[in-house]
Amino acid sequence: MLDQQAPPLDRVFQALADPSRRGMVERLSRGPASVSELAKPLPMSLQAVVQHLQVLEASGLVRTEKIGRVRTCQIEPVVLRSAEQWITERRTSWEERLDRLGDYLADNPEEPNPRSKQ
Amino acid sequence: MLDQQAPPLDRVFQALADPSRRGMVERLSRGPASVSELAKPLPMSLQAVVQHLQVLEASGLVRTEKIGRVRTCQIEPVVLRSAEQWITERRTSWEERLDRLGDYLADNPEEPNPRSKQ
Repeated sequence: MLDQQAPPLDRVFQALADPSRRGMVERLSRGPASVSELAKPLPMSLQAVVQHLQVLEASGLVRTEKIGRVRTCQIEPVVLRSAEQWITERRTSWEERLDRLGDYLADNPEEPNPRSKQ
Repeated sequence: MLDQQAPPLDRVFQALADPSRRGMVERLSRGPASVSELAKPLPMSLQAVVQHLQVLEASGLVRTEKIGRVRTCQIEPVVLRSAEQWITERRTSWEERLDRLGDYLADNPEEPNPRSKQ
């Protein structure tokens, strides 16, 4: 189970750290599904599926709605995007630094140790 | 500690599920740093920093190299990108489905329940 008090990104990344839960997100990225549709391809009990689903719900990545006797699950793209954005920003920051280092080396071809000047 | 046998994405998302470790990745996205530089802004013991660093190394997100007495840490952008790509693909898949649903609704304005035709 996830810690409900944990910061949102903690819960999102924690939820994504399990292959069964990623499989459920993968399935839901192709459209809403009932709990039994989600469970069908997974080699685990329905109870285990429900537990994974609760972790996904707690993280905000998935929301579920019960209509009559069927609980339908769908992805929450805003939450998926927040995790994506965190990683993209770090990756971009790293690449920009590399570009600046490349520019520095191009401008200072005779400097043997550019790090000491950073 | 992380399970070394776990699939790579499990370990990457698990490593990112902690705010201190995300802080370290954030710092390293701006350039390499020694362990003590990484530790400086963090309200924890050096030992705790080293443990978080081991989790980051085990996930592949960070690699470290000891030169003389200083261990320098840097980000591994390929691993960061693999996690980013997994999320991007799911998010894109969801958006494409939504676009197709939009097209369907535009082409079939009189259909009361488009889900039943999907």
